[in-house]
Amino acid sequence: MNLLGKRWIGLIVTQLLSGKKRFSDIENSLPISGRLLSERLKELEELGVVDRKVFPEVPVRIEYLLTDKGKELEMVINSIAAWATKWGEAAEKKE
Amino acid sequence: MNLLGKRWIGLIVTQLLSGKKRFSDIENSLPISGRLLSERLKELEELGVVDRKVFPEVPVRIEYLLTDKGKELEMVINSIAAWATKWGEAAEKKE
Repeated sequence: MNLLGKRWIGLIVTQLLSGKKRFSDIENSLPISGRLLSERLKELEELGVVDRKVFPEVPVRIEYLLTDKGKELEMVINSIAAWATKWGEAAEKKE
Repeated sequence: MNLLGKRWIGLIVTQLLSGKKRFSDIENSLPISGRLLSERLKELEELGVVDRKVFPEVPVRIEYLLTDKGKELEMVINSIAAWATKWGEAAEKKE
């Protein structure tokens, strides 16, 4: 279950929760390097959390989308986000 | 939020969800080295998730217990456990 703790995994899955995305869509919306994003997407694919669809167009079009397994990570991500919002650094600064 | 992904953090917090524990209690119930357990407990203390109580007895007694912030990790851990049970390796073997 260390998957979720890996840097960027939660944010990448969160991006995909709003629907299929191209590599550049994700890369442009997160301060992550292309190399690391590609590595994380491969890990997510190997774990059956993300599907990679290749469209034989010119230039080729590749889309990433969550599998059912991936979509059900939403409840986990929401519970982490709720906890982090309530108890996170932001909350600590208010005290 | 990488805390939860670090190895053993989830299992240590799960141990403490059932109440305060001594170092040896946790060490004996998880296949973790004393050095690493001590490191993780320090991290959890720094993040305000665990409290460390020292009782000036001979020999000294030290207990670890979850703070309110720590106790509220239960919902996060339960959602991860539910997801992992449904979609984890065990589930994959059944398919």
